[in-house]
Amino acid sequence: MREPDHLRTVQRFVRRELTGREKELDVPADVPRPLYGRFAATGLMNWWLPEEHGGRGLGLEESVRIVSALAYGDAGVAFSLFLPILGTSMVDRYGGDELRARVLGPLAAEGGFCAALASEHEAGSELARTATTVRADGDSLVLDGTKAFATNADHARFLVVIARSADDPDAYLAVVVPRDNPGVKVGKRWDVIGLRSSAAHEVTLSDCRVPAANALRGNGLRLLETGLSASRILIATTALGIARRIRDLCMDYARTKTVKGAPLASNAVFAGRLGQFETLIDVMANQCLAAAREYDAVAARPDAAEEFLRQGTLKSAMTTKMFCGQSGWRIASEASEMFGGLGYTHEAAIGKLVRDMRYVSLFEGGDDVLRELVYHRHVVPVSKRS
Amino acid sequence: MREPDHLRTVQRFVRRELTGREKELDVPADVPRPLYGRFAATGLMNWWLPEEHGGRGLGLEESVRIVSALAYGDAGVAFSLFLPILGTSMVDRYGGDELRARVLGPLAAEGGFCAALASEHEAGSELARTATTVRADGDSLVLDGTKAFATNADHARFLVVIARSADDPDAYLAVVVPRDNPGVKVGKRWDVIGLRSSAAHEVTLSDCRVPAANALRGNGLRLLETGLSASRILIATTALGIARRIRDLCMDYARTKTVKGAPLASNAVFAGRLGQFETLIDVMANQCLAAAREYDAVAARPDAAEEFLRQGTLKSAMTTKMFCGQSGWRIASEASEMFGGLGYTHEAAIGKLVRDMRYVSLFEGGDDVLRELVYHRHVVPVSKRS
Amino acid sequence: MREPDHLRTVQRFVRRELTGREKELDVPADVPRPLYGRFAATGLMNWWLPEEHGGRGLGLEESVRIVSALAYGDAGVAFSLFLPILGTSMVDRYGGDELRARVLGPLAAEGGFCAALASEHEAGSELARTATTVRADGDSLVLDGTKAFATNADHARFLVVIARSADDPDAYLAVVVPRDNPGVKVGKRWDVIGLRSSAAHEVTLSDCRVPAANALRGNGLRLLETGLSASRILIATTALGIARRIRDLCMDYARTKTVKGAPLASNAVFAGRLGQFETLIDVMANQCLAAAREYDAVAARPDAAEEFLRQGTLKSAMTTKMFCGQSGWRIASEASEMFGGLGYTHEAAIGKLVRDMRYVSLFEGGDDVLRELVYHRHVVPVSKRS
Amino acid sequence: MREPDHLRTVQRFVRRELTGREKELDVPADVPRPLYGRFAATGLMNWWLPEEHGGRGLGLEESVRIVSALAYGDAGVAFSLFLPILGTSMVDRYGGDELRARVLGPLAAEGGFCAALASEHEAGSELARTATTVRADGDSLVLDGTKAFATNADHARFLVVIARSADDPDAYLAVVVPRDNPGVKVGKRWDVIGLRSSAAHEVTLSDCRVPAANALRGNGLRLLETGLSASRILIATTALGIARRIRDLCMDYARTKTVKGAPLASNAVFAGRLGQFETLIDVMANQCLAAAREYDAVAARPDAAEEFLRQGTLKSAMTTKMFCGQSGWRIASEASEMFGGLGYTHEAAIGKLVRDMRYVSLFEGGDDVLRELVYHRHVVPVSKRS
Repeated sequence: MREPDHLRTVQRFVRRELTGREKELDVPADVPRPLYGRFAATGLMNWWLPEEHGGRGLGLEESVRIVSALAYGDAGVAFSLFLPILGTSMVDRYGGDELRARVLGPLAAEGGFCAALASEHEAGSELARTATTVRADGDSLVLDGTKAFATNADHARFLVVIARSADDPDAYLAVVVPRDNPGVKVGKRWDVIGLRSSAAHEVTLSDCRVPAANALRGNGLRLLETGLSASRILIATTALGIARRIRDLCMDYARTKTVKGAPLASNAVFAGRLGQFETLIDVMANQCLAAAREYDAVAARPDAAEEFLRQGTLKSAMTTKMFCGQSGWRIASEASEMFGGLGYTHEAAIGKLVRDMRYVSLFEGGDDVLRELVYHRHVVPVSKRS
Repeated sequence: MREPDHLRTVQRFVRRELTGREKELDVPADVPRPLYGRFAATGLMNWWLPEEHGGRGLGLEESVRIVSALAYGDAGVAFSLFLPILGTSMVDRYGGDELRARVLGPLAAEGGFCAALASEHEAGSELARTATTVRADGDSLVLDGTKAFATNADHARFLVVIARSADDPDAYLAVVVPRDNPGVKVGKRWDVIGLRSSAAHEVTLSDCRVPAANALRGNGLRLLETGLSASRILIATTALGIARRIRDLCMDYARTKTVKGAPLASNAVFAGRLGQFETLIDVMANQCLAAAREYDAVAARPDAAEEFLRQGTLKSAMTTKMFCGQSGWRIASEASEMFGGLGYTHEAAIGKLVRDMRYVSLFEGGDDVLRELVYHRHVVPVSKRS
Repeated sequence: MREPDHLRTVQRFVRRELTGREKELDVPADVPRPLYGRFAATGLMNWWLPEEHGGRGLGLEESVRIVSALAYGDAGVAFSLFLPILGTSMVDRYGGDELRARVLGPLAAEGGFCAALASEHEAGSELARTATTVRADGDSLVLDGTKAFATNADHARFLVVIARSADDPDAYLAVVVPRDNPGVKVGKRWDVIGLRSSAAHEVTLSDCRVPAANALRGNGLRLLETGLSASRILIATTALGIARRIRDLCMDYARTKTVKGAPLASNAVFAGRLGQFETLIDVMANQCLAAAREYDAVAARPDAAEEFLRQGTLKSAMTTKMFCGQSGWRIASEASEMFGGLGYTHEAAIGKLVRDMRYVSLFEGGDDVLRELVYHRHVVPVSKRS
Repeated sequence: MREPDHLRTVQRFVRRELTGREKELDVPADVPRPLYGRFAATGLMNWWLPEEHGGRGLGLEESVRIVSALAYGDAGVAFSLFLPILGTSMVDRYGGDELRARVLGPLAAEGGFCAALASEHEAGSELARTATTVRADGDSLVLDGTKAFATNADHARFLVVIARSADDPDAYLAVVVPRDNPGVKVGKRWDVIGLRSSAAHEVTLSDCRVPAANALRGNGLRLLETGLSASRILIATTALGIARRIRDLCMDYARTKTVKGAPLASNAVFAGRLGQFETLIDVMANQCLAAAREYDAVAARPDAAEEFLRQGTLKSAMTTKMFCGQSGWRIASEASEMFGGLGYTHEAAIGKLVRDMRYVSLFEGGDDVLRELVYHRHVVPVSKRS
């Protein structure tokens, strides 16, 4: 079966730009930005943006294929490239027509990033504790606060900021802020342990004033949850890409490494372990695809915006991120024992892959948080059970 | 979404005949036979048989839904009812027209069982060591040997026997033998630790003579492998049904059991565990469905018979059985710690469910065997990787 | 190094009375009682009783060796034989002189059992919810209530009952009740899934009157905790004995079973698995011994009774039971996949060993309960950390 | 119980020199060397050297206490400081009197390091494939070859080199080579992923000539195995120290972090997880001590040198390294999910601890190698089983 053009484009990009450049991509330098430019040159930047705004209109199922291929090359690059879906899907579904055109049009036509600013130091995973405020001032909204961990923020065109209403502590808004708006200050870059080709910064908003039309319709926390359905599935998908890469790395090693006079590749214990990896990879792939299809099915409904709000983060987005994070870590852990002493040095790629893999279970909700959500929303109500 | 009629029929059968009868069904009595009769009365017996032979023609995806529902009620009943697919799918694809009509017609019209006789004591999982022989004698084939573990054999109409050619030790045949054929002797019933509502016997064939037309076309071992694609996916599916049952059992218990003055259902550690169960159940369900769809896609091809032979047991059939067996056992193990001392008695259902679950990783290839197959067939050849 | 006489006596008992009798011992018949008589005939019944009362005075370290050997033969027999240590150690440390002589003397001289009656249906693992009451009536104590799960109760000489004071709901007593006391009614025998050579019954006490001197000194719940230090370590030790038995069973099988033309014993995957079993067994053994030595060190102090009370259940008793239960279950689970289809029948011993193993994590506190205790008592206070 | 002076000295060193310096110690700079000097100033350098040569004569049980305390501070420092035991224990047991005085005397009096040079690129864990050669030339021995991964080699006084006889490919020698001997060339420093305060280099020996008396008595590979008994137990012990550090890090975090309005420390899921950590830490500690006592018992025998040779690497040294590596990794993995997004940055210490922990299962034999050794040496021979 011939793969679609866009997938072959991605695979070519991976081969040309990422393969064999692990060390370069494992340094938090400016390196990635030109790289992102070369990805934009393929015409696939923000590939999910709707055709009505000039985008490619690819669904989440295709996104799973694209992100898996990208993450096979480098998870940080994959993460930076797909994460704008979190903010743009919120803008696309809950923004006014003018705002959508203003934000999505340029992102489709010229590329560029959209960053979601949600997490804060004190709040951690409890977003209801958000301390960043937004207040109305005539026809403007004014934002103040500090966001802890904002991927792509520095080089973004637009920020989607989750803020608490200064007037009503129970109300939250999601507000679009251009990156170059007065009052936006990008602070320190985080020295992350993996995904080092991506960039996350602290961002401070001080008396940051935008038109009232920049607010999205609806409760900001709920809107964020709908966006997380897409990004969580794609975070899970990076685990799949990394796992495939680890498997192939093991196989490459096993063809050259000799154990008891025979190639490691013919060793029964090794065979069993790789057979188990393949089993998990097969299941991870099917799970990512199943969750993406469920997302696409909701997105295809005429009432998609309401339906996403009604459901909150899709159950399958949570189970997929948990499962792929757990299986990916298991594969990374076992593989990290296979390369002997060399595997304990930066000359081997496995160390980077283990560090990259770790993020899957940490970002956008740890397993404890997600297990509890799944339990209360999908196990306690009998009808929601799988 | 309204469920299809056949699924509602199955659910009604489960509620009426299986629910609450754990103890009855945990005894290797004759009980099951009338039960099977009542299932036949629903018109769903051998639901997968092709419409051209009077069957319902339901595909493997529907079978996953049916088997999950049945196994939720009782895994032994589910196993007995779906296992005939192993033999009948071989007959359907590789039997001559007359044989197909002779075997599949009655099974569709009147119900009844078809048992596959493959395993032998010495051979274990290495079917190439099969010692049962078949020799040509004029227009007849004569079979001799003892099969170790033959589910449904005693109450079957037809047996599909895997035998080695008496003339060519490297040739194997799959031969249809009517249950009441002279020379068929059903021996002792196995006292199994779980699935006790199903019945497995030792079977001896002595100078057992059938028409030459009863042989299926092609290498018997390869034919068997194609049949295992269906049965392995459905064995995996029983793990899903049992897991769902365990989850619901835990929830029922947690609503009445009090811990530190509050229902167990509101306990955070319990919530996390059930959230993890649900995650695994969701993934198991998606994996079973994905494998079944892959099977149905091959089955829908005009060259299905050749394609199944070409592929051997589907990779996804192996990964699905392994994964569901592992996840199911993990769920059963953890759940078996939740019911306190009572959970250690036969008054609680959990003990039976643990014993039932165990079979998934034991029947039709243990994980060590399957991991090795997956490795050599689907990891070593780069193009076959997931 | 020559083993001590008592250990060789135990090993001989195991070989003569238990080895090869798995099926007999897996039935809840009256079988065990004559068996217990034959154990008593070795002079080792209640081997831990103090020499001043005519006992053998063996410490917990020796008990670990004895119980491991017994459990290698049959875990139910081991459990029945060591469990009296729970009640007798309470009597020995917290009973008056007359009571100690009255109880411990006959148990040392003539053998016989002492059963502890603690658990109740409603209370589960929360013993503070005990509903059985004790009230003073002149020089007598009167007990009323129902105990759920009392091992050895039917054939015991003495029962040690945990009861709540009828006058003060926050006070608890531990009271010795002769088995043949009026008002003691032994109810139904539990149909347990494993340990089937032991017997546990429900026991009802109705207006059950004993001399006031039968009460032990101190808070009954705290006294019970001290007794659990001994019994939990020995429960953990049964996991060790069963695990050794499983290992040997696997090795016996592997010498006769052929895989790919070679004995399973020379298969690399099998070797790795058994190497891991042996590693866990080695650690389990060292942990049981370390905990027992810690117990013996406290017991050797002149203020042992106070010190045991001060410490409550020893930390090591809890960690040992948890660890051995977890490791034992892991070994049992993996081993239960090794014997193929035969391993799914009652012809193989592995099924019984899995069921026997299960109890270790269920009796005398599940892991959730113990983990929480360990956390609050031994992690939160910095000085108590390991 | 008051701790011995040397342990308090170590704890003071840890507090003064290591605590709070994670970042400094996570960089492969020259930093450690002055640090080692300050450790030498405590008089504890090479604390295990025999008193007859001016050493402190502390046994392995004490070494476990010291190494656990050091590794709590920094695993790389601990590793560098104890690893000389590998070479010096070989010299002490199998060196001639003059050699022992020449090597051990200065190491005891003035401190300094002894490095063992065993591993080579091609050979990996199969030391019998060693390609470094040694040949006799008059009264000298001449060594040639390249050793892959030699910790402490650059700043050592003495190297103990494992080499194959140039005359007899089946014979191996262990030869002492002064670090400043002509022909010793220390090559590149490995850029390791953890233990970064230790230094490992590649070392090339070219026509490296030493007196014949520098050879130890006996088969070099067997001598190495005896040395590994000590170092493997201490490698395992670093896992214990790191695990304790992780636990305390989690507790420190849990006291300040708020979840749902309460400190994380009072969260039930967190409590259960830490209770499990403590359980494993308790078992790891007991296992390290048990193995060390076994080692000390052999070392105390008059025929210790022969007995160590007879036994090869102690079984308990292998099981302890495996078990502590596995449990340590489990603790590190779970803990690495607890610190949220911050835990994914180099601002949190957990990342370093995970990387440090990884080495335990990689150095001096991976688990696959050790499992196989344990199986063939200690499970197949019935009498050697635990």
